[in-house]
Amino acid sequence: MFIGEVIGTVVATRKTDNMQGLTLRLVRRLTTDNMPTDVYAVAVDVVGASEGERVLVSAGSPARQTPQTDARPVDALILAIVDNWQVQQRLVYSRLQEAGS
Amino acid sequence: MFIGEVIGTVVATRKTDNMQGLTLRLVRRLTTDNMPTDVYAVAVDVVGASEGERVLVSAGSPARQTPQTDARPVDALILAIVDNWQVQQRLVYSRLQEAGS
Amino acid sequence: MFIGEVIGTVVATRKTDNMQGLTLRLVRRLTTDNMPTDVYAVAVDVVGASEGERVLVSAGSPARQTPQTDARPVDALILAIVDNWQVQQRLVYSRLQEAGS
Amino acid sequence: MFIGEVIGTVVATRKTDNMQGLTLRLVRRLTTDNMPTDVYAVAVDVVGASEGERVLVSAGSPARQTPQTDARPVDALILAIVDNWQVQQRLVYSRLQEAGS
Amino acid sequence: MFIGEVIGTVVATRKTDNMQGLTLRLVRRLTTDNMPTDVYAVAVDVVGASEGERVLVSAGSPARQTPQTDARPVDALILAIVDNWQVQQRLVYSRLQEAGS
Repeated sequence: MFIGEVIGTVVATRKTDNMQGLTLRLVRRLTTDNMPTDVYAVAVDVVGASEGERVLVSAGSPARQTPQTDARPVDALILAIVDNWQVQQRLVYSRLQEAGS
Repeated sequence: MFIGEVIGTVVATRKTDNMQGLTLRLVRRLTTDNMPTDVYAVAVDVVGASEGERVLVSAGSPARQTPQTDARPVDALILAIVDNWQVQQRLVYSRLQEAGS
Repeated sequence: MFIGEVIGTVVATRKTDNMQGLTLRLVRRLTTDNMPTDVYAVAVDVVGASEGERVLVSAGSPARQTPQTDARPVDALILAIVDNWQVQQRLVYSRLQEAGS
Repeated sequence: MFIGEVIGTVVATRKTDNMQGLTLRLVRRLTTDNMPTDVYAVAVDVVGASEGERVLVSAGSPARQTPQTDARPVDALILAIVDNWQVQQRLVYSRLQEAGS
Repeated sequence: MFIGEVIGTVVATRKTDNMQGLTLRLVRRLTTDNMPTDVYAVAVDVVGASEGERVLVSAGSPARQTPQTDARPVDALILAIVDNWQVQQRLVYSRLQEAGS
């Protein structure tokens, strides 16, 4: 998985039948230091993430391992909203601090 | 998935039996700001996208999760035609505006 | 899939039992403008491509979706010989022109 | 697989049901000379690795091939703690030496 | 598949049960001109390759398509020892010449 930031939404009415009803979010990949990169994915969101939140994205076949994405042509999935992460004992990001700041 | 622009078509008569009857489009990967990149894929189109349209492409095994691509050696699929997308509340691309301009 | 040029052949006698009898070709990835890149794959050829021909290569699990590659550790497949492709209405490559020139 | 160093932990309470109870570690990819790179993965740990340890990470669908990750949207797995590795007969890393130093 | 050179071995005692008994080799990716690159994989060897030999490595899910790697979290497999390869009719590498030199 990679850590990403939800930066936007994609709307597509004309699509394969089995993609109906799925939310498509733009997610920018972040470094372990919480810095943005140029890499992004359009990922199906099954956890209800909001713009600006840090999320975990699973790529490839594993993205189909949820009831909502099973048997669909989904290659990227937002599977979790990140509360916090630390690198070498240092807190890099905390959702609560972010919300409070 | 990634956002791409349909830029062309590939014709191949001699191919595996299970690739017969599939439309092969050249899709150039775009950035979230709607700018072209050097990355492309030859993708099977099951939604009838036209040249110049923005589409969503799914890569790898998930590309087989449609009735048309099931059990075929397809590793890239155009699964949707993009209507619009926004990044940080800003509309980056709208199909209607594009068509009207 | 990506567009490639068949540039060579790999010979390997000592291999897993289920790789016996498969032709292994070196394929160089091309840009959409028919220019060579440094990226290559050793791909199983099931369509009988010759050196110099433009082919379509499927990568990853989808490469196993032919009778010849089913249940084998194949991660790249030549699935088609390209007749021609066009980018923005311009013919970039034509197999017939190439053969005639 | 790639050789990585466990550099941190990711905490996420809100996630898909089938991700509950899994430990998520930040793993930085290393070169064969034991040097850090900018590439990282958030990987599920099923072997109990500690921060600073060298581990083997499997990516993609294969990451689901353990009892703990089966049928879950996991695309990266810590499957082993590295004792040592050598390159061209030279010992590059040894866990015991590291612990003793 | 890619052409690689076996450059070393990784030892890991603590690992998932289903990884026991597999040989883990460090393989450096080569160019089609037999030049080393910075890309490497830790691959399971099922053909008994020796250090310095040129091998074919299959990546991702296809790596599980052997009796030894079936149902294991293996994402890279040495599936063949390369005898020779040629690029545009030129012999780039020959195992016999290498052994004799």
